[in-house]
Amino acid sequence: MISGFRSRHLAVVGLGLMGGSLALALRDRADFITGVDRNPDTLKYALEHGVVDAATDDLKAGVSEADTVILAAPVRAIIQMIEGRIGSYLRSNTLLIDIGSTKADICDVMARLPIGVQAIGGHPMTGKESNGVEASDGTLYHGRPFVLCPSRRTTPAARERALLLVDAVGAVPIEMEAHRHDQVVAAISHLPYLLSAALVATVAQEGSEDDAVWRLAAGGFRDMSRLAGSDLKMMGDILSTNSRAVAKMLALFRRELAMIEAMLISEDDVKLTELLRPARDARLAWVQRVEAAKNGK
Amino acid sequence: MISGFRSRHLAVVGLGLMGGSLALALRDRADFITGVDRNPDTLKYALEHGVVDAATDDLKAGVSEADTVILAAPVRAIIQMIEGRIGSYLRSNTLLIDIGSTKADICDVMARLPIGVQAIGGHPMTGKESNGVEASDGTLYHGRPFVLCPSRRTTPAARERALLLVDAVGAVPIEMEAHRHDQVVAAISHLPYLLSAALVATVAQEGSEDDAVWRLAAGGFRDMSRLAGSDLKMMGDILSTNSRAVAKMLALFRRELAMIEAMLISEDDVKLTELLRPARDARLAWVQRVEAAKNGK
Repeated sequence: MISGFRSRHLAVVGLGLMGGSLALALRDRADFITGVDRNPDTLKYALEHGVVDAATDDLKAGVSEADTVILAAPVRAIIQMIEGRIGSYLRSNTLLIDIGSTKADICDVMARLPIGVQAIGGHPMTGKESNGVEASDGTLYHGRPFVLCPSRRTTPAARERALLLVDAVGAVPIEMEAHRHDQVVAAISHLPYLLSAALVATVAQEGSEDDAVWRLAAGGFRDMSRLAGSDLKMMGDILSTNSRAVAKMLALFRRELAMIEAMLISEDDVKLTELLRPARDARLAWVQRVEAAKNGK
Repeated sequence: MISGFRSRHLAVVGLGLMGGSLALALRDRADFITGVDRNPDTLKYALEHGVVDAATDDLKAGVSEADTVILAAPVRAIIQMIEGRIGSYLRSNTLLIDIGSTKADICDVMARLPIGVQAIGGHPMTGKESNGVEASDGTLYHGRPFVLCPSRRTTPAARERALLLVDAVGAVPIEMEAHRHDQVVAAISHLPYLLSAALVATVAQEGSEDDAVWRLAAGGFRDMSRLAGSDLKMMGDILSTNSRAVAKMLALFRRELAMIEAMLISEDDVKLTELLRPARDARLAWVQRVEAAKNGK
């Protein structure tokens, strides 16, 4: 009888905010946790603060005894590990789950892992402003959506164990096909990032001519420019592994913006307002939905 | 000798969040405050909570005894009041200041007020999520930029009194020409609003096909969609009185986005990252600047 996620030996590869928080969230579910990271300061911190029981910069040593391995690195680092030798390091029946931000490329390379590796793609929709193992928080995943995408190496048992893991960290599992996932996040995450970056670039042009631009920039600009400050390496990985879906969303966006622009230039205020109304309504409906979910519906 | 802003009789026309907060902020500087609004519930609330000393829905009665009149209404309502009969209601030497979100059209019509009216355009860069007189807050203007734009009816005395008023509510005066103001806010405020609305329209298309879009939407989408929920009447007024400057910013934005898209499609990750880096740097520099200003530099 299964009563929730258990691991004899859990390995977390990549001890940033996300990996460190997963280790903390699974503290009581694993007899032993090994952390793998390249940064000696990160390993030292994780050991000293009890995030992990053992720490190493050697991938093989870190994962070869584990029954569950979580890959918590940027997308291309995950792909390189899976395409590399990690398959040969793992014991048979080890659950391998990644938490990269795009899923199609990762699930593709998972298909070439040795049979016996139980691999599944994952993407938890959470985070916070601060990064690094020092910001780790065992409640980071509470109530957050955690997407699971099957690969050709996802056995029914792998799926079951992944669902238990998601449940154990307090997250809400959402199972979906990898390409569908990538298109959804292109819309809600990657397109918004590019718009934020292009907006800041536009404002910066004005700001280089007149410093008042920066002095007057207030709450609206603060919100709309936040994503532009994202980590470039992380975003580069995400965009390069999802460029087709993002390009598709950019095309849809351009059409929406062109309609607004046409109405603005025609100075037809009534039609402009009617064009903007559905977006207002959709935003308000989404906020209500989020509030309702918070209050347990 | 002048020792800060004083008013024998202050009239605030429009008792929303902004007008109500100005009345509260100037409570100790005015011997008597009259509030003018069309909404009887607003007038009742403002009287009962001591926001104003007298309340009326009659513009003439409200402003004719005042030495200082603040117009705190949507842009087109302000224009209609100034183009209408308000000039003939005011005593000579009355300071007339508006706080509309665009300034060129308002300063234009101010030029046609009777000589003797001391008129100046204003735009405080502040606000909060909640609206209405019930949300009024005497500290709303503390430390916030408050733009002042001269009109042909701005005498040196009017400018001086407006500066004292801005100082009295705790704001930081920034004097600039009205057209320049409108171009700056087109970049930092009106363009961001249109991008937010077009983003939500794009995401809503995806969301109509797959509900997972709404379930997965998280912090990035929340920030980027907030402005799309703005009041449509207010935004309609703003856009219709600033369409040329906004159209110019849209053209600049389109160019920035097209460069990003080209690099995305070419799958040149290095160049894409280099293209995105200046926006990242500009956002981080602005955040640092805001923090430094908060900590008194």
